[in-house]
Amino acid sequence: MHTVLRSATRELVIGPDQPFCIIGERINPTGRPKFQEELRAGDMHRVIEDVHAQVAGGAMMLDVNMGVPLADEAQLLSDAVRLIQSLTDLPLCIDSSVVEALDAGLAAYQGKALVNSVTGEAERLEAILPLVKKYGAAVIALPNEEDEIPEDPAKRLEITRKIVQVATTEYGIPIEDIVIDPLAMPVGANHEYGKWTMQAISLIRDEFGLNTTVGAGNVSFGMPGRHALGAAFLPMAIHAGLTSAIMDARTPQMVESVKAADLMMGNDEWGANWIAAFRAKQKAAEAAAAAGAATAAG
Amino acid sequence: MHTVLRSATRELVIGPDQPFCIIGERINPTGRPKFQEELRAGDMHRVIEDVHAQVAGGAMMLDVNMGVPLADEAQLLSDAVRLIQSLTDLPLCIDSSVVEALDAGLAAYQGKALVNSVTGEAERLEAILPLVKKYGAAVIALPNEEDEIPEDPAKRLEITRKIVQVATTEYGIPIEDIVIDPLAMPVGANHEYGKWTMQAISLIRDEFGLNTTVGAGNVSFGMPGRHALGAAFLPMAIHAGLTSAIMDARTPQMVESVKAADLMMGNDEWGANWIAAFRAKQKAAEAAAAAGAATAAG
Repeated sequence: MHTVLRSATRELVIGPDQPFCIIGERINPTGRPKFQEELRAGDMHRVIEDVHAQVAGGAMMLDVNMGVPLADEAQLLSDAVRLIQSLTDLPLCIDSSVVEALDAGLAAYQGKALVNSVTGEAERLEAILPLVKKYGAAVIALPNEEDEIPEDPAKRLEITRKIVQVATTEYGIPIEDIVIDPLAMPVGANHEYGKWTMQAISLIRDEFGLNTTVGAGNVSFGMPGRHALGAAFLPMAIHAGLTSAIMDARTPQMVESVKAADLMMGNDEWGANWIAAFRAKQKAAEAAAAAGAATAAG
Repeated sequence: MHTVLRSATRELVIGPDQPFCIIGERINPTGRPKFQEELRAGDMHRVIEDVHAQVAGGAMMLDVNMGVPLADEAQLLSDAVRLIQSLTDLPLCIDSSVVEALDAGLAAYQGKALVNSVTGEAERLEAILPLVKKYGAAVIALPNEEDEIPEDPAKRLEITRKIVQVATTEYGIPIEDIVIDPLAMPVGANHEYGKWTMQAISLIRDEFGLNTTVGAGNVSFGMPGRHALGAAFLPMAIHAGLTSAIMDARTPQMVESVKAADLMMGNDEWGANWIAAFRAKQKAAEAAAAAGAATAAG
Protein backbone atom coordinates (compact mmCIF):
# COMPACT_ATOMS: atom_id res chain seq x y z
CA MET A 1 0.00 0.00 0.00
CA HIS A 2 1.28 3.48 -0.87
CA THR A 3 0.77 6.57 1.26
CA VAL A 4 1.48 9.60 -0.91
CA LEU A 5 2.50 12.91 0.71
CA ARG A 6 3.24 16.17 -1.08
CA SER A 7 4.81 19.56 -0.54
CA ALA A 8 4.03 22.32 -3.05
CA THR A 9 6.44 20.77 -5.56
CA ARG A 10 7.55 17.35 -4.40
CA GLU A 11 5.85 14.01 -3.94
CA LEU A 12 6.92 11.33 -1.45
CA VAL A 13 5.65 7.76 -1.46
CA ILE A 14 5.72 5.61 1.68
CA GLY A 15 5.37 1.88 1.07
CA PRO A 16 6.95 -1.53 1.61
CA ASP A 17 8.46 -1.50 -1.89
CA GLN A 18 9.93 2.00 -1.40
CA PRO A 19 13.11 3.17 0.33
CA PHE A 20 12.32 3.55 4.03
CA CYS A 21 10.92 6.99 4.88
CA ILE A 22 13.04 8.95 7.37
CA ILE A 23 10.86 11.59 9.05
CA GLY A 24 13.23 14.11 10.67
CA GLU A 25 12.12 14.68 14.24
CA ARG A 26 14.11 17.56 15.66
CA ILE A 27 11.89 20.56 14.88
CA ASN A 28 10.28 20.33 18.28
CA PRO A 29 10.85 22.44 21.42
CA THR A 30 9.75 19.70 23.84
CA GLY A 31 12.39 19.39 26.55
CA ARG A 32 14.39 22.32 25.10
CA PRO A 33 13.70 25.33 27.40
CA LYS A 34 15.98 27.72 25.49
CA PHE A 35 14.18 26.90 22.22
CA GLN A 36 10.81 27.43 23.94
CA GLU A 37 11.90 30.84 25.24
CA GLU A 38 13.04 31.87 21.76
CA LEU A 39 9.78 30.75 20.19
CA ARG A 40 7.76 32.69 22.76
CA ALA A 41 9.78 35.75 21.74
CA GLY A 42 9.06 35.06 18.06
CA ASP A 43 12.64 33.99 17.31
CA MET A 44 12.66 31.07 14.85
CA HIS A 45 16.37 30.86 14.01
CA ARG A 46 16.65 27.45 15.70
CA VAL A 47 13.87 26.11 13.48
CA ILE A 48 15.98 27.09 10.47
CA GLU A 49 19.06 25.38 11.93
CA ASP A 50 17.13 22.22 12.74
CA VAL A 51 15.59 22.07 9.26
CA HIS A 52 19.01 22.36 7.63
CA ALA A 53 20.52 19.71 9.93
CA GLN A 54 17.69 17.22 9.30
CA VAL A 55 17.80 17.75 5.54
CA ALA A 56 21.60 17.38 5.51
CA GLY A 57 21.30 14.16 7.51
CA GLY A 58 18.96 12.58 4.98
CA ALA A 59 15.44 13.33 6.22
CA MET A 60 12.83 12.68 3.54
CA MET A 61 10.04 14.42 5.42
CA LEU A 62 10.06 16.70 8.49
CA ASP A 63 7.97 16.49 11.65
CA VAL A 64 7.06 19.97 12.95
CA ASN A 65 5.88 20.44 16.51
CA MET A 66 5.54 23.85 18.16
CA GLY A 67 4.22 22.77 21.54
CA VAL A 68 5.36 25.63 23.79
CA PRO A 69 3.65 26.21 27.14
CA LEU A 70 2.04 29.65 27.46
CA ALA A 71 2.35 30.40 23.74
CA ASP A 72 -0.16 30.56 20.90
CA GLU A 73 0.65 27.17 19.43
CA ALA A 74 -1.71 27.62 16.47
CA GLN A 75 0.07 30.82 15.44
CA LEU A 76 3.51 29.34 16.02
CA LEU A 77 2.71 26.20 14.04
CA SER A 78 1.31 28.07 11.04
CA ASP A 79 4.30 30.45 11.09
CA ALA A 80 6.72 27.52 11.34
CA VAL A 81 5.01 25.66 8.49
CA ARG A 82 5.29 28.72 6.21
CA LEU A 83 8.90 29.31 7.20
CA ILE A 84 9.91 25.67 6.68
CA GLN A 85 8.18 25.47 3.31
CA SER A 86 10.26 28.48 2.24
CA LEU A 87 13.42 26.54 3.19
CA THR A 88 12.80 23.04 1.85
CA ASP A 89 10.54 21.20 -0.55
CA LEU A 90 10.25 18.14 1.72
CA PRO A 91 6.69 17.26 2.75
CA LEU A 92 5.81 17.95 6.39
CA CYS A 93 4.30 16.04 9.23
CA ILE A 94 2.15 18.47 11.25
CA ASP A 95 2.52 17.43 14.87
CA SER A 96 0.39 18.65 17.75
CA SER A 97 -1.95 17.41 20.45
CA VAL A 98 -3.95 20.64 20.15
CA VAL A 99 -6.74 20.47 17.58
CA GLU A 100 -6.68 24.22 16.84
CA ALA A 101 -2.94 24.09 16.22
CA LEU A 102 -3.35 21.17 13.77
CA ASP A 103 -6.06 23.14 11.98
CA ALA A 104 -3.88 26.25 11.70
CA GLY A 105 -0.84 24.24 10.62
CA LEU A 106 -2.80 22.39 7.95
CA ALA A 107 -4.37 25.64 6.73
CA ALA A 108 -0.90 27.14 6.28
CA TYR A 109 0.53 24.05 4.59
CA GLN A 110 0.90 23.77 0.83
CA GLY A 111 0.51 20.18 -0.33
CA LYS A 112 -0.70 16.98 1.29
CA ALA A 113 0.53 16.73 4.88
CA LEU A 114 0.76 13.90 7.37
CA VAL A 115 -1.07 14.70 10.62
CA ASN A 116 0.62 13.53 13.84
CA SER A 117 -1.51 12.14 15.43
CA VAL A 118 -4.85 10.68 16.44
CA THR A 119 -5.50 8.03 19.10
CA GLY A 120 -8.32 5.53 19.53
CA GLU A 121 -10.58 7.48 21.90
CA ALA A 122 -13.89 8.50 20.33
CA GLU A 123 -13.48 12.19 21.18
CA ARG A 124 -10.01 12.33 19.60
CA LEU A 125 -11.24 10.61 16.46
CA GLU A 126 -14.18 13.04 16.28
CA ALA A 127 -11.95 16.06 16.75
CA ILE A 128 -9.08 15.18 14.40
CA LEU A 129 -10.42 13.03 11.57
CA PRO A 130 -12.67 15.82 10.19
CA LEU A 131 -9.54 17.99 9.86
CA VAL A 132 -7.69 15.18 8.08
CA LYS A 133 -10.62 14.86 5.68
CA LYS A 134 -11.06 18.64 5.23
CA TYR A 135 -7.43 19.17 4.23
CA GLY A 136 -7.08 15.91 2.29
CA ALA A 137 -4.21 14.93 4.57
CA ALA A 138 -2.92 11.56 5.73
CA VAL A 139 -2.83 10.74 9.43
CA ILE A 140 -0.71 8.87 11.94
CA ALA A 141 -2.92 6.85 14.27
CA LEU A 142 -1.75 5.43 17.61
CA PRO A 143 -3.53 2.32 18.82
CA ASN A 144 -3.98 3.43 22.40
CA GLU A 145 -6.97 4.55 24.39
CA GLU A 146 -7.49 6.46 27.61
CA ASP A 147 -3.76 7.16 27.99
CA GLU A 148 -3.07 3.46 28.30
CA ILE A 149 -0.64 1.85 25.84
CA PRO A 150 -1.68 -1.78 25.53
CA GLU A 151 1.30 -4.13 25.91
CA ASP A 152 -0.30 -7.00 24.00
CA PRO A 153 0.34 -6.70 20.23
CA ALA A 154 -3.07 -8.30 19.56
CA LYS A 155 -4.74 -5.53 21.55
CA ARG A 156 -2.90 -2.90 19.49
CA LEU A 157 -4.18 -4.61 16.36
CA GLU A 158 -7.71 -4.54 17.78
CA ILE A 159 -7.61 -0.76 18.38
CA THR A 160 -6.11 -0.33 14.91
CA ARG A 161 -9.13 -2.16 13.49
CA LYS A 162 -11.46 0.25 15.25
CA ILE A 163 -9.58 3.34 14.05
CA VAL A 164 -9.46 2.07 10.46
CA GLN A 165 -13.18 1.31 10.57
CA VAL A 166 -14.13 4.74 11.90
CA ALA A 167 -11.74 6.69 9.66
CA THR A 168 -12.73 4.95 6.43
CA THR A 169 -16.47 4.51 6.91
CA GLU A 170 -17.46 7.47 9.08
CA TYR A 171 -15.04 10.04 7.64
CA GLY A 172 -14.34 8.69 4.17
CA ILE A 173 -10.57 8.78 4.66
CA PRO A 174 -8.85 6.44 2.16
CA ILE A 175 -7.29 3.51 4.01
CA GLU A 176 -3.90 4.19 2.42
CA ASP A 177 -3.86 7.59 4.15
CA ILE A 178 -3.81 5.95 7.57
CA VAL A 179 -0.31 5.30 8.95
CA ILE A 180 -0.18 3.35 12.20
CA ASP A 181 2.35 4.11 14.92
CA PRO A 182 2.22 0.87 16.93
CA LEU A 183 4.00 2.54 19.85
CA ALA A 184 7.62 1.55 20.39
CA MET A 185 8.21 1.25 24.12
CA PRO A 186 11.64 1.24 25.81
CA VAL A 187 13.40 -2.12 26.17
CA GLY A 188 14.99 -0.65 29.31
CA ALA A 189 11.57 -0.88 30.98
CA ASN A 190 10.84 -4.40 29.73
CA HIS A 191 13.17 -6.51 27.59
CA GLU A 192 10.15 -7.93 25.71
CA TYR A 193 8.99 -4.51 24.46
CA GLY A 194 11.11 -4.53 21.29
CA LYS A 195 9.77 -7.92 20.29
CA TRP A 196 6.17 -6.94 21.02
CA THR A 197 6.48 -3.75 18.96
CA MET A 198 7.78 -5.76 15.99
CA GLN A 199 4.94 -8.24 16.44
CA ALA A 200 2.42 -5.39 16.40
CA ILE A 201 3.99 -4.03 13.18
CA SER A 202 3.74 -7.44 11.49
CA LEU A 203 0.14 -8.01 12.64
CA ILE A 204 -0.91 -4.62 11.23
CA ARG A 205 0.96 -5.26 7.98
CA ASP A 206 -0.49 -8.74 7.59
CA GLU A 207 -4.09 -7.72 8.22
CA PHE A 208 -4.28 -4.36 6.43
CA GLY A 209 -1.03 -3.81 4.52
CA LEU A 210 -0.98 -0.40 6.20
CA ASN A 211 2.13 1.73 6.39
CA THR A 212 3.60 2.12 9.86
CA THR A 213 5.85 4.53 11.70
CA VAL A 214 7.50 4.67 15.11
CA GLY A 215 9.45 7.14 17.19
CA ALA A 216 12.76 5.36 16.63
CA GLY A 217 14.39 6.78 19.76
CA ASN A 218 11.74 5.46 22.16
CA VAL A 219 12.96 1.87 22.05
CA SER A 220 16.39 2.70 23.49
CA PHE A 221 15.25 5.29 26.05
CA GLY A 222 17.15 4.92 29.33
CA MET A 223 19.70 2.44 27.91
CA PRO A 224 23.37 3.06 27.10
CA GLY A 225 24.48 2.81 23.46
CA ARG A 226 21.22 4.23 22.14
CA HIS A 227 22.37 4.78 18.54
CA ALA A 228 23.63 1.21 18.25
CA LEU A 229 20.33 -0.10 19.63
CA GLY A 230 18.39 2.04 17.17
CA ALA A 231 20.63 0.88 14.32
CA ALA A 232 19.68 -2.73 15.08
CA PHE A 233 16.02 -2.09 15.93
CA LEU A 234 15.23 -0.20 12.71
CA PRO A 235 16.44 -2.92 10.28
CA MET A 236 14.61 -5.56 12.34
CA ALA A 237 11.41 -3.50 12.43
CA ILE A 238 11.76 -2.86 8.69
CA HIS A 239 11.95 -6.60 8.17
CA ALA A 240 8.84 -6.89 10.35
CA GLY A 241 7.04 -4.43 8.06
CA LEU A 242 7.89 -0.92 9.30
CA THR A 243 7.91 1.60 6.43
CA SER A 244 8.81 4.89 8.12
CA ALA A 245 10.17 6.29 11.37
CA ILE A 246 10.24 9.62 13.13
CA MET A 247 13.92 9.88 13.97
CA ASP A 248 16.80 12.30 14.34
CA ALA A 249 18.48 12.33 10.91
CA ARG A 250 21.64 13.66 12.61
CA THR A 251 22.48 10.14 13.84
CA PRO A 252 24.57 8.71 10.95
CA GLN A 253 24.65 5.20 12.43
CA MET A 254 20.86 4.97 12.39
CA VAL A 255 20.47 6.58 8.97
CA GLU A 256 23.10 4.20 7.58
CA SER A 257 21.31 1.19 9.10
CA VAL A 258 18.12 2.23 7.29
CA LYS A 259 19.94 2.55 3.95
CA ALA A 260 21.51 -0.88 4.43
CA ALA A 261 18.08 -2.29 5.29
CA ASP A 262 16.68 -0.82 2.04
CA LEU A 263 19.28 -2.82 0.14
CA MET A 264 18.57 -5.99 2.14
CA MET A 265 14.83 -5.62 1.49
CA GLY A 266 15.45 -5.42 -2.26
CA ASN A 267 14.40 -1.73 -2.30
CA ASP A 268 17.69 -0.31 -3.58
CA GLU A 269 18.05 -1.43 -7.16
CA TRP A 270 21.64 -2.43 -8.00
CA GLY A 271 22.62 -1.01 -4.62
CA ALA A 272 22.84 2.37 -6.34
CA ASN A 273 21.73 4.41 -3.31
CA TRP A 274 24.06 2.51 -0.99
CA ILE A 275 27.06 3.01 -3.25
CA ALA A 276 26.24 6.71 -3.82
CA ALA A 277 25.93 7.28 -0.05
CA PHE A 278 29.24 5.52 0.54
CA ARG A 279 31.00 7.69 -2.07
CA ALA A 280 29.51 10.87 -0.58
CA LYS A 281 30.74 9.81 2.87
CA GLN A 282 34.22 9.12 1.49
CA LYS A 283 34.35 12.49 -0.25
CA ALA A 284 33.23 14.27 2.91
CA ALA A 285 35.93 12.44 4.89
CA GLU A 286 38.56 13.38 2.29
CA ALA A 287 37.42 17.01 2.29
CA ALA A 288 37.57 17.08 6.10
CA ALA A 289 41.07 15.53 6.04
CA ALA A 290 42.23 18.04 3.41
CA ALA A 291 40.79 20.94 5.44
CA GLY A 292 42.56 19.56 8.52
CA ALA A 293 45.86 19.32 6.62
CA ALA A 294 45.44 22.88 5.29
CA THR A 295 44.79 24.16 8.82
CA ALA A 296 47.82 22.31 10.14
CA ALA A 297 49.99 23.65 7.28
CA GLY A 298 48.68 27.21 7.71
CA MET B 1 14.41 -26.11 18.95
CA HIS B 2 17.75 -26.35 20.75
CA THR B 3 20.99 -27.54 19.18
CA VAL B 4 23.40 -28.40 21.97
CA LEU B 5 27.17 -28.38 21.32
CA ARG B 6 29.89 -29.19 23.82
CA SER B 7 33.61 -28.89 24.36
CA ALA B 8 35.23 -31.06 27.04
CA THR B 9 33.91 -28.75 29.75
CA ARG B 10 31.43 -26.27 28.30
CA GLU B 11 27.97 -26.53 26.79
CA LEU B 12 26.52 -24.15 24.22
CA VAL B 13 22.86 -24.02 23.24
CA ILE B 14 21.76 -22.60 19.89
CA GLY B 15 18.08 -21.69 19.67
CA PRO B 16 15.60 -18.90 18.95
CA ASP B 17 15.18 -18.17 22.66
CA GLN B 18 18.95 -18.00 23.23
CA PRO B 19 21.47 -15.22 22.65
CA PHE B 20 22.54 -15.38 18.99
CA CYS B 21 25.47 -17.77 18.47
CA ILE B 22 28.57 -16.09 17.02
CA ILE B 23 30.75 -18.73 15.35
CA GLY B 24 34.22 -17.19 14.90
CA GLU B 25 35.34 -17.77 11.33
CA ARG B 26 38.95 -16.74 11.03
CA ILE B 27 40.79 -20.00 11.76
CA ASN B 28 40.98 -20.78 8.07
CA PRO B 29 43.91 -20.48 5.65
CA THR B 30 41.72 -20.05 2.56
CA GLY B 31 43.01 -17.06 0.60
CA ARG B 32 45.92 -16.55 3.04
CA PRO B 33 49.07 -17.87 1.26
CA LYS B 34 51.43 -17.00 4.12
CA PHE B 35 49.26 -18.90 6.60
CA GLN B 36 49.16 -21.88 4.20
CA GLU B 37 52.93 -21.89 3.88
CA GLU B 38 53.33 -21.86 7.67
CA LEU B 39 50.85 -24.71 8.10
CA ARG B 40 52.69 -26.80 5.51
CA ALA B 41 55.84 -26.24 7.57
CA GLY B 42 53.99 -27.30 10.74
CA ASP B 43 53.94 -23.78 12.17
CA MET B 44 50.64 -23.15 13.96
CA HIS B 45 51.37 -19.82 15.69
CA ARG B 46 48.78 -18.02 13.52
CA VAL B 47 46.12 -20.47 14.64
CA ILE B 48 46.86 -19.43 18.22
CA GLU B 49 46.65 -15.73 17.31
CA ASP B 50 43.37 -16.22 15.46
CA VAL B 51 41.84 -18.18 18.34
CA HIS B 52 42.74 -15.45 20.81
CA ALA B 53 41.39 -12.71 18.52
CA GLN B 54 38.08 -14.48 17.92
CA VAL B 55 37.61 -15.25 21.62
CA ALA B 56 38.45 -11.66 22.55
CA GLY B 57 35.94 -10.40 19.98
CA GLY B 58 33.10 -12.41 21.47
CA ALA B 59 33.02 -15.69 19.53
CA MET B 60 30.91 -18.32 21.29
CA MET B 61 32.12 -21.18 19.09
CA LEU B 62 35.02 -21.42 16.62
CA ASP B 63 35.01 -22.68 13.04
CA VAL B 64 38.24 -24.55 12.22
CA ASN B 65 39.24 -25.16 8.63
CA MET B 66 42.69 -26.42 7.63
CA GLY B 67 42.20 -26.63 3.86
CA VAL B 68 45.76 -26.23 2.59
CA PRO B 69 46.65 -27.40 -0.93
CA LEU B 70 49.38 -30.08 -1.02
CA ALA B 71 49.16 -30.73 2.71
CA ASP B 72 47.79 -33.61 4.79
CA GLU B 73 44.54 -31.88 5.77
CA ALA B 74 43.43 -34.74 8.03
CA GLN B 75 46.64 -34.46 10.07
CA LEU B 76 46.51 -30.65 10.13
CA LEU B 77 42.88 -30.61 11.23
CA SER B 78 43.35 -33.11 14.04
CA ASP B 79 46.47 -31.22 15.22
CA ALA B 80 44.60 -27.91 15.07
CA VAL B 81 41.63 -29.31 16.98
CA ARG B 82 43.91 -30.58 19.78
CA LEU B 83 45.83 -27.30 19.89
CA ILE B 84 42.69 -25.16 19.97
CA GLN B 85 41.07 -27.27 22.67
CA SER B 86 44.19 -26.65 24.78
CA LEU B 87 43.65 -22.89 24.34
CA THR B 88 39.92 -22.44 24.80
CA ASP B 89 36.87 -24.25 26.14
CA LEU B 90 34.60 -22.99 23.35
CA PRO B 91 32.97 -25.75 21.29
CA LEU B 92 34.28 -26.13 17.74
CA CYS B 93 32.81 -26.32 14.30
CA ILE B 94 34.91 -28.80 12.28
CA ASP B 95 35.03 -27.43 8.74
CA SER B 96 36.24 -29.32 5.69
CA SER B 97 35.09 -30.51 2.28
CA VAL B 98 37.35 -33.58 2.65
CA VAL B 99 35.64 -36.53 4.33
CA GLU B 100 38.90 -37.97 5.76
CA ALA B 101 39.76 -34.61 7.28
CA LEU B 102 36.34 -34.37 8.95
CA ASP B 103 36.81 -37.89 10.31
CA ALA B 104 40.25 -37.08 11.72
CA GLY B 105 39.07 -33.75 13.16
CA LEU B 106 36.07 -35.35 14.83
CA ALA B 107 38.23 -38.19 16.20
CA ALA B 108 40.56 -35.66 17.79
CA TYR B 109 37.73 -33.52 19.21
CA GLN B 110 36.60 -33.76 22.82
CA GLY B 111 32.92 -33.01 23.13
CA LYS B 112 30.04 -32.67 20.69
CA ALA B 113 31.13 -30.80 17.57
CA LEU B 114 29.27 -29.11 14.75
CA VAL B 115 30.30 -30.48 11.33
CA ASN B 116 30.59 -27.92 8.51
CA SER B 117 29.09 -29.10 6.16
CA VAL B 118 26.99 -31.45 4.08
CA THR B 119 25.08 -30.59 0.89
CA GLY B 120 22.02 -32.19 -0.70
CA GLU B 121 23.73 -34.53 -3.18
CA ALA B 122 23.22 -38.23 -2.37
CA GLU B 123 26.95 -39.03 -2.38
CA ARG B 124 27.75 -36.19 0.06
CA LEU B 125 24.94 -37.25 2.39
CA GLU B 126 26.20 -40.86 2.24
CA ALA B 127 29.78 -39.82 2.94
CA ILE B 128 29.25 -37.31 5.74
CA LEU B 129 26.11 -38.26 7.67
CA PRO B 130 27.60 -41.58 8.92
CA LEU B 131 30.46 -39.57 10.44
CA VAL B 132 28.02 -37.18 12.10
CA LYS B 133 26.19 -40.18 13.55
CA LYS B 134 29.36 -42.03 14.56
CA TYR B 135 30.72 -39.09 16.56
CA GLY B 136 27.33 -37.92 17.86
CA ALA B 137 27.94 -34.53 16.29
CA ALA B 138 25.57 -31.91 14.90
CA VAL B 139 25.83 -30.88 11.26
CA ILE B 140 25.43 -27.79 9.08
CA ALA B 141 23.52 -28.67 5.92
CA LEU B 142 23.47 -26.48 2.81
CA PRO B 143 20.38 -26.76 0.62
CA ASN B 144 22.20 -26.92 -2.69
CA GLU B 145 22.82 -29.70 -5.15
CA GLU B 146 25.26 -30.27 -7.99
CA ASP B 147 27.17 -27.06 -7.26
CA GLU B 148 24.10 -25.01 -8.02
CA ILE B 149 22.71 -22.68 -5.37
CA PRO B 150 18.98 -22.36 -6.01
CA GLU B 151 17.85 -18.72 -6.04
CA ASP B 152 14.24 -19.49 -5.17
CA PRO B 153 13.72 -19.70 -1.38
CA ALA B 154 11.03 -22.38 -1.93
CA LYS B 155 13.58 -24.55 -3.73
CA ARG B 156 16.02 -24.19 -0.81
CA LEU B 157 13.21 -25.30 1.50
CA GLU B 158 12.56 -28.30 -0.76
CA ILE B 159 16.19 -29.45 -0.61
CA THR B 160 16.14 -28.86 3.16
CA ARG B 161 13.16 -31.23 3.38
CA LYS B 162 15.11 -33.90 1.56
CA ILE B 163 18.20 -33.52 3.74
CA VAL B 164 16.12 -33.60 6.94
CA GLN B 165 14.29 -36.70 5.72
CA VAL B 166 17.50 -38.59 4.85
CA ALA B 167 19.42 -37.51 7.97
CA THR B 168 16.67 -38.36 10.44
CA THR B 169 15.24 -41.55 8.94
CA GLU B 170 18.22 -43.16 7.18
CA TYR B 171 20.94 -42.13 9.64
CA GLY B 172 18.98 -41.60 12.86
CA ILE B 173 20.36 -38.12 13.39
CA PRO B 174 18.12 -36.14 15.79
CA ILE B 175 16.40 -33.32 13.90
CA GLU B 176 17.66 -30.74 16.42
CA ASP B 177 21.23 -31.63 15.41
CA ILE B 178 20.66 -30.38 11.87
CA VAL B 179 21.51 -26.68 11.36
CA ILE B 180 20.62 -25.28 7.95
CA ASP B 181 22.83 -22.73 6.19
CA PRO B 182 20.34 -21.32 3.66
CA LEU B 183 23.19 -19.78 1.65
CA ALA B 184 23.54 -16.00 1.89
CA MET B 185 24.44 -14.67 -1.53
CA PRO B 186 25.91 -11.22 -2.26
CA VAL B 187 23.49 -8.32 -2.75
CA GLY B 188 26.13 -6.83 -5.05
CA ALA B 189 25.30 -9.57 -7.56
CA ASN B 190 21.54 -9.18 -7.21
CA HIS B 191 19.77 -6.69 -4.95
CA GLU B 192 17.05 -9.28 -4.23
CA TYR B 193 19.49 -11.80 -2.72
CA GLY B 194 19.32 -10.43 0.82
CA LYS B 195 15.53 -10.62 0.81
CA TRP B 196 15.51 -14.13 -0.63
CA THR B 197 17.99 -15.35 1.97
CA MET B 198 15.78 -13.99 4.75
CA GLN B 199 12.74 -15.60 3.15
CA ALA B 200 14.54 -18.96 3.04
CA ILE B 201 15.43 -18.61 6.74
CA SER B 202 11.79 -17.91 7.65
CA LEU B 203 10.47 -20.78 5.53
CA ILE B 204 12.87 -23.22 7.21
CA ARG B 205 12.00 -21.88 10.67
CA ASP B 206 8.26 -22.00 10.02
CA GLU B 207 8.25 -25.57 8.66
CA PHE B 208 10.79 -27.27 10.92
CA GLY B 209 11.79 -24.85 13.69
CA LEU B 210 15.37 -25.73 12.75
CA ASN B 211 18.33 -23.63 13.77
CA THR B 212 20.06 -21.80 10.93
CA THR B 213 23.44 -20.27 10.22
CA VAL B 214 24.98 -18.19 7.44
CA GLY B 215 28.39 -16.94 6.43
CA ALA B 216 27.64 -13.36 7.51
CA GLY B 217 30.26 -11.83 5.22
CA ASN B 218 28.85 -13.31 2.02
CA VAL B 219 25.92 -10.93 1.77
CA SER B 220 28.13 -7.82 1.45
CA PHE B 221 30.81 -9.33 -0.79
CA GLY B 222 31.91 -6.86 -3.47
CA MET B 223 30.07 -3.88 -1.90
CA PRO B 224 31.55 -0.90 -0.06
CA GLY B 225 30.71 -0.47 3.63
CA ARG B 226 30.67 -4.19 4.29
CA HIS B 227 30.57 -4.01 8.09
CA ALA B 228 27.63 -1.60 8.03
CA LEU B 229 25.78 -3.90 5.63
CA GLY B 230 26.48 -6.90 7.84
CA ALA B 231 25.39 -4.94 10.91
CA ALA B 232 21.98 -4.37 9.29
CA PHE B 233 21.66 -7.79 7.65
CA LEU B 234 22.29 -9.78 10.84
CA PRO B 235 19.55 -8.13 12.96
CA MET B 236 17.11 -8.48 10.05
CA ALA B 237 18.03 -12.13 9.50
CA ILE B 238 17.73 -12.73 13.26
CA HIS B 239 14.24 -11.30 13.11
CA ALA B 240 13.58 -13.64 10.16
CA GLY B 241 14.67 -16.59 12.32
CA LEU B 242 18.46 -16.86 12.03
CA THR B 243 20.00 -18.28 15.21
CA SER B 244 23.76 -18.35 14.45
CA ALA B 245 26.31 -17.02 11.97
CA ILE B 246 29.83 -17.84 10.95
CA MET B 247 31.44 -14.42 11.17
CA ASP B 248 34.64 -12.60 12.02
CA ALA B 249 34.29 -11.71 15.70
CA ARG B 250 36.92 -9.00 15.15
CA THR B 251 34.29 -6.71 13.56
CA PRO B 252 32.88 -4.80 16.57
CA GLN B 253 30.08 -3.19 14.54
CA MET B 254 28.68 -6.58 13.55
CA VAL B 255 29.14 -8.14 17.00
CA GLU B 256 27.41 -5.13 18.56
CA SER B 257 24.51 -5.41 16.09
CA VAL B 258 23.99 -9.01 17.18
CA LYS B 259 23.97 -8.08 20.87
CA ALA B 260 21.46 -5.30 20.20
CA ALA B 261 19.34 -7.78 18.22
CA ASP B 262 19.40 -10.18 21.21
CA LEU B 263 17.87 -7.42 23.33
CA MET B 264 15.28 -6.56 20.66
CA MET B 265 14.29 -10.24 20.37
CA GLY B 266 13.69 -10.42 24.11
CA ASN B 267 16.72 -12.72 24.56
CA ASP B 268 18.70 -10.47 26.89
CA GLU B 269 16.86 -10.39 30.19
CA TRP B 270 16.80 -6.90 31.75
CA GLY B 271 19.32 -5.90 29.04
CA ALA B 272 22.02 -7.24 31.37
CA ASN B 273 24.33 -8.42 28.55
CA TRP B 274 23.92 -5.18 26.63
CA ILE B 275 24.70 -3.04 29.66
CA ALA B 276 27.69 -5.22 30.65
CA ALA B 277 29.11 -5.02 27.10
CA PHE B 278 28.67 -1.25 27.08
CA ARG B 279 30.49 -0.91 30.42
CA ALA B 280 33.34 -3.14 29.19
CA LYS B 281 33.66 -1.01 26.06
CA GLN B 282 33.75 2.17 28.14
CA LYS B 283 36.42 0.74 30.46
CA ALA B 284 38.52 -0.36 27.48
CA ALA B 285 38.23 3.13 25.97
CA GLU B 286 39.22 4.71 29.29
CA ALA B 287 42.18 2.35 29.66
CA ALA B 288 43.30 3.14 26.10
CA ALA B 289 42.98 6.88 26.78
CA ALA B 290 44.95 6.55 30.04
CA ALA B 291 47.66 4.55 28.25
CA GLY B 292 47.77 7.21 25.54
CA ALA B 293 48.09 9.96 28.15
CA ALA B 294 50.85 8.05 29.94
CA THR B 295 52.75 7.63 26.66
CA ALA B 296 52.36 11.32 25.85
CA ALA B 297 53.52 12.30 29.36
CA GLY B 298 56.48 9.92 29.19
